[in-house]
Amino acid sequence: MRTIFEHRTIRKYKNDPIPQEHIELILKAAIRASTTGNMQLYSIIVTTDQAIKEKLWEVHFKQDMVKEAPLLLTFCADIRRFEKWCDLHGAKHNYRNILWFLNSVTDALLAAQNAALQAESLDYGICYLGTTLYNADKIIEILNLPDGVFPITSLVIGIPNEKPPLTDRLPLNAVIHYQTYKDYNQEDIIKIYYEKENSDFYKKIVEQNNVPSLAHVFTDKRYTENDNIFFSEKIINILKKLKFI
Amino acid sequence: MRTIFEHRTIRKYKNDPIPQEHIELILKAAIRASTTGNMQLYSIIVTTDQAIKEKLWEVHFKQDMVKEAPLLLTFCADIRRFEKWCDLHGAKHNYRNILWFLNSVTDALLAAQNAALQAESLDYGICYLGTTLYNADKIIEILNLPDGVFPITSLVIGIPNEKPPLTDRLPLNAVIHYQTYKDYNQEDIIKIYYEKENSDFYKKIVEQNNVPSLAHVFTDKRYTENDNIFFSEKIINILKKLKFI
Repeated sequence: MRTIFEHRTIRKYKNDPIPQEHIELILKAAIRASTTGNMQLYSIIVTTDQAIKEKLWEVHFKQDMVKEAPLLLTFCADIRRFEKWCDLHGAKHNYRNILWFLNSVTDALLAAQNAALQAESLDYGICYLGTTLYNADKIIEILNLPDGVFPITSLVIGIPNEKPPLTDRLPLNAVIHYQTYKDYNQEDIIKIYYEKENSDFYKKIVEQNNVPSLAHVFTDKRYTENDNIFFSEKIINILKKLKFI
Repeated sequence: MRTIFEHRTIRKYKNDPIPQEHIELILKAAIRASTTGNMQLYSIIVTTDQAIKEKLWEVHFKQDMVKEAPLLLTFCADIRRFEKWCDLHGAKHNYRNILWFLNSVTDALLAAQNAALQAESLDYGICYLGTTLYNADKIIEILNLPDGVFPITSLVIGIPNEKPPLTDRLPLNAVIHYQTYKDYNQEDIIKIYYEKENSDFYKKIVEQNNVPSLAHVFTDKRYTENDNIFFSEKIINILKKLKFI
C-alpha cells in the first residue's frame, strides 16, 4: 500500500481548511477499523474551532502545528456510551477495569490509524500527538470529556507545508522475532542501533544536545525521569478516578 | 482507501501458507507506522510453526482460526530493547511507568493496524484476537517474552475461507463529537442503538441467548463480570511485575 510506505510525520501545515466531505471520509474510515466485540468503545472529538485549538495548543506543549493545521482529532477510549446503553436496558455492566480500559484504548488506536491513513491517501499530512497522554487531565477539561472517557492520542491533519524525507527505522529484523522472542545481547544491540547512531542526522543531534550518546538525548533531554514520574502520576490519578485501575 | 472500507473480520481460513515475501511486506508496512519519538517501542512475534500455534490456540480460547490460519502476529509493547540500548551507553532510563506503557502500547497498535491493512490489500483476511489480553500471562510464557515486553494484541492472517458481509457500525454521528464532547441523554442512546437492536441479525442473537436485550448478551454472556474481574486481576499483576504501574 503506497500510502503506508510514503508516510511522513508532518509538523508544518498550511491553514487551508479541510472540506467537510473529506473530514467525513476520514471519520468513516476510522469507524471501519476492527473493534472489540464490535462495541466501538471510542469517541472521536473533531476540533476545527480556532479558540478551542488555541486551548489545546497550550496543553500540547505549544506545538504550533496544533494551532496552524485546520483539523485536530482527539481519539478517546469511551466506555461511557456503552454503559449508558446497558443502563437503558437494565443490564448490569462491569467495564471499569484494566481489561476494558485496554480494550477501549485498542479500539481508539486502531480507529486512529485508519483515520491517519485515509487522510494521507487524500494527500493530507498527519502528526500524532503523544502529548495527549501527558496532559490528559487538561484535555478532559477542555473537551468536556465526561466520566468514562479518556483521551489516548490526537491527530493533527492538514495540507503539508514541508516535505521531510522518510523517517529512519531500525532494521526490520531488530523488531521482529520468528516463532518466539530471541532476547538481545550486547552485540545485537550494537548492531541494531549502528546505522542510527552513525547517521549524520543523529550525530548532529547528539552534538547539539552536548550529551555522550544518542541514548542520552532520550533519557536526559527529551523524556526525562522527572517528566516521566510527574506525568505518570497524573495518568494514574485519572485512571483511578475513572476506576479503570 | 478501498482496503479500509472493505475490511471484514475473517474467522475461517484456508491452510495455504503465506509466501515469505508477503510476510515481509506486511511486517515492513507495520514498521512504517508512527511511533513515539521514533523509538519503535514494540516487538512483533511471527508465528508460523504449527506446534507453537497449537499452544497459542489453547490460550486464545481455542478459536480454531489460530490453528488453521498460516500466520499469527503477536504485537507486544516492548520497552526492553530501548532500555538495553540505554544501558549500553550508560544512559539512566526511567520507562517503567504508565506513561511509557501507554506509549509503547500505542506504538504496537498503530503498527498492528498497518500490518492488518497491508495484509488485506494483498487479499488476505485478518482477525484481531482480544484474547491476547485475557491470557497475556500464558502468551508471555509460550513466546518467551522477557521482562519489559507485554503482548497487547494479535492478528490472525491467511486466505479467507468465508465471505462474510460488512460488519454493521453505529451511525457515524454516534461516535463523533464536534468541537467538544456532547454527552448522551437517554433519547440519544435509544436512537444510536435503534438500527442495531432492530436488525434481524441481532434480534436472533438475543433470542438464541434467551436474554431481555442485546445489551444483556454483552454483560451476561460474552463479557461477564466474573471474567472481567478475573482477567483484569491477571493483567494488573503482570503490569505490576513489569513495574508499569
